[in-house]
Amino acid sequence: MCNHHKNILSRALSVPSAKAKFEQTTIERRELRPDDVLIDIKYCGICHSDIHHAHNDWGSGIYPMVPGHEIAGVVTAVGTEVTQFAIGDRVGVGCFVDSCGECKYCLRGDEQFCTKGVIVVFNSVDSDGNLTYGGYSQKIVVKENFVVRIPDGLELDVASPLLCAGITTYSPLKHWNIGPGKKVAIVGMGGLGHVAVQFAHAMGAEVTVLSQTMAKKDEALDFGADQYFATSDPVTFTELAGQFDFILNTVSANLDVDAYLSLLDVDGTLVNVGLPAQQEQYNVFSLVMGRRSMAGSNVGGIRETQEMLDFSAQHRIVPMIEVIRADQVDEAYERVLRSDVRYRFVIDMSSL
Amino acid sequence: MCNHHKNILSRALSVPSAKAKFEQTTIERRELRPDDVLIDIKYCGICHSDIHHAHNDWGSGIYPMVPGHEIAGVVTAVGTEVTQFAIGDRVGVGCFVDSCGECKYCLRGDEQFCTKGVIVVFNSVDSDGNLTYGGYSQKIVVKENFVVRIPDGLELDVASPLLCAGITTYSPLKHWNIGPGKKVAIVGMGGLGHVAVQFAHAMGAEVTVLSQTMAKKDEALDFGADQYFATSDPVTFTELAGQFDFILNTVSANLDVDAYLSLLDVDGTLVNVGLPAQQEQYNVFSLVMGRRSMAGSNVGGIRETQEMLDFSAQHRIVPMIEVIRADQVDEAYERVLRSDVRYRFVIDMSSL
Repeated sequence: MCNHHKNILSRALSVPSAKAKFEQTTIERRELRPDDVLIDIKYCGICHSDIHHAHNDWGSGIYPMVPGHEIAGVVTAVGTEVTQFAIGDRVGVGCFVDSCGECKYCLRGDEQFCTKGVIVVFNSVDSDGNLTYGGYSQKIVVKENFVVRIPDGLELDVASPLLCAGITTYSPLKHWNIGPGKKVAIVGMGGLGHVAVQFAHAMGAEVTVLSQTMAKKDEALDFGADQYFATSDPVTFTELAGQFDFILNTVSANLDVDAYLSLLDVDGTLVNVGLPAQQEQYNVFSLVMGRRSMAGSNVGGIRETQEMLDFSAQHRIVPMIEVIRADQVDEAYERVLRSDVRYRFVIDMSSL
Repeated sequence: MCNHHKNILSRALSVPSAKAKFEQTTIERRELRPDDVLIDIKYCGICHSDIHHAHNDWGSGIYPMVPGHEIAGVVTAVGTEVTQFAIGDRVGVGCFVDSCGECKYCLRGDEQFCTKGVIVVFNSVDSDGNLTYGGYSQKIVVKENFVVRIPDGLELDVASPLLCAGITTYSPLKHWNIGPGKKVAIVGMGGLGHVAVQFAHAMGAEVTVLSQTMAKKDEALDFGADQYFATSDPVTFTELAGQFDFILNTVSANLDVDAYLSLLDVDGTLVNVGLPAQQEQYNVFSLVMGRRSMAGSNVGGIRETQEMLDFSAQHRIVPMIEVIRADQVDEAYERVLRSDVRYRFVIDMSSL
């Protein structure tokens, strides 16, 4: 099982500069360290945050950039000291590829909060000083502690979006103890929302979808929603006032925060996982009356990501995806920006 | 112990209209019902919210108005079915004088969240249709379930501000499990803040005061603060970044919310008990990075108010007060608006 590689070359999709189109190129992956695994990437999901990074919406873009943090593939080589994976294993990689491993957050499995800063799978400077390149590529080398196992019951294509859309919604639902007896609203039924509905339902909660229009009602009910309301209808906000223990907001546009807070019961919590570009406004009164909370959640740790995949296999939680070829990514980005996707694009890396 | 009264008259301080000066007048209190107690009011604290109501800042003023919800006195008569109090008992009344008693919040002791709407001690319509008049008066008739016992160790004058400033700060500290090992910041050291510091210290937390200037440092340390920083110094926000498990914001002016959120550790919570007149602005990023929460808290229930008074007596938590005469209330209001009070005015009702 000892494999030494030099100059591991990988085909990849790269943007040369902000808002440029994708180019097919070849990148180099590092030689395997003792605790690394080499993964043959089969599928990589497209997340809205890939687009924000590629377009430099957040001002932190480093180019050329190879996005992608919803990686599903198969192990093709392992370092000399790898103990958890073997060649042929079906595995995933999400947002992170390294962290300090020593701070209190890393030690408890919350690598996303690493005090030294977690190393992100792309657009980040790795511990060796090299830039990280993400999953829009055919091969990646990752430290085994940042690799998760994809259970047999999950196909690789549908598993890939779980590595970000899945853990981003599973983690807050678990953290805030969602389960039987809890009334949960999911705001937005897109890439994140349609998975959140499935998780919340599988956890035993009573699930309501709040979507802009009624267009996705049938699918929401198929995913396990008990109720569905259109937020474009003002009656929704009077009818549902004070109803929910927990609201998961998956929308990254700015919202009328006070209107959503008014839907919470006493001691209810509104958790945001999207990142609107502008500041939000709210009235403190909306929190004080009813001891309500507003919070945020940022993906989840590696152990929790594994737990989420196992939960998904057990409960048959499957993102609804549209598989595309490598030459369709620019078009897919445009469609994501128009909300014209049900519900996640996944790139077939064999087309690269 | 059976006492029937008709036409109970009480001297009172009343404002005839928004922003008018106080007038000394006589009001009528209801005849005792079987479960009522008649209280001879000895002291009543002045809360900033009295001023908001008297000045009709929140647009809900009903005139003539007798403010006051920090009432300390002695029982002078009891209804035929009163079981918890006897003539001569030292008692207090806070913000509420009635609630439905049947909803899930009332049943668990959170009367402040009563689904039918809690009845407030002044500027509220009582269950009999009459207006409620508050504690700036010599006598009040209150249902015994909304009366609390002032422990022997607490003088009536210092006890009075605990009925609002005390419970408003004690309740969130208890609700969010403040205790040994917790790092707590108290924002603002006024009527609420100086009591919050004492509670948080007595609960075993490490307490930091964040006040506009260094002016109150010595007093803060006397109240039990471990550290004191001026928020007017920008270095405060870099030095204390990520330090606190819990921040209690007692300031009712609008703040730079993102700056205060940046002081929270992972999973930390910022709780507001003040009510700024304008909407607040914040960046969702501040919550998402660090899974931080922002919440509000609204006084506390009757059982918890009794618990708070007992805790105050046990730990010798004493508001610092300035006792004034009835003819000084207009001047006291002006001084509160200039923050010229250390830290709570209390009206001596024998001066009325």
